Amino acid sequence: MAGTVLTVCTTCRAGRPVEADGDRPGKKLYDALAADLPDGVTIRPVECLSACDNGCSMVLSGGDEKWTYVYGHLTLDHVEDILAGAKAYDATDDGLVPWRERPVIFRKQSLARIPPQETK
Amino acid sequence: MAGTVLTVCTTCRAGRPVEADGDRPGKKLYDALAADLPDGVTIRPVECLSACDNGCSMVLSGGDEKWTYVYGHLTLDHVEDILAGAKAYDATDDGLVPWRERPVIFRKQSLARIPPQETK
Repeated sequence: MAGTVLTVCTTCRAGRPVEADGDRPGKKLYDALAADLPDGVTIRPVECLSACDNGCSMVLSGGDEKWTYVYGHLTLDHVEDILAGAKAYDATDDGLVPWRERPVIFRKQSLARIPPQETK
Repeated sequence: MAGTVLTVCTTCRAGRPVEADGDRPGKKLYDALAADLPDGVTIRPVECLSACDNGCSMVLSGGDEKWTYVYGHLTLDHVEDILAGAKAYDATDDGLVPWRERPVIFRKQSLARIPPQETK
């Protein structure tokens, strides 16, 4: 089974003006998540998820047999919840964490979910 | 290589009141697309892509080596463009159709894109 992957847009400006110096909000989010990953969860940066109107954004995926989720409007305040949600997702076979066990941000800030590649 | 798949939310109401009789907008979109699929492109229904605020919605995917796209605000007026865009996507190795060759709806109505599962 493929491991769980957080794919984080590191070029996201979260709708703010470009700062000449300093990291973008997406890069800061990436760094904060990468610093405290649970076992079984990896992270990868990507330049643009084409979700700029709803940034910062992130994909939660775990291979062909799981649902994939796209989340938006993420900030550094959500790091703990994102990591807890990723850990719960990692423990499932299909990616479907019971609703009440999902962090609130995962219930409310989904931009889209994508079914497993093979329908069963 | 996996074929190109259109995954269409058939339960989408597109923000309209429920009609007691008759198909939902998502189901109508699904049927219209299914009636005229190009070679190499298949379609599958799904109940909810969790993109309800931006429906009707659809996923364009083609296996682990291609970028996956989520599109929103789709209507029956877009059927021809969706099918042309899917055909162009099918002809690529990585899912990246040159910008100017993409239908306008694919340029402007992307909710998110997801990179191939394995970064190279």
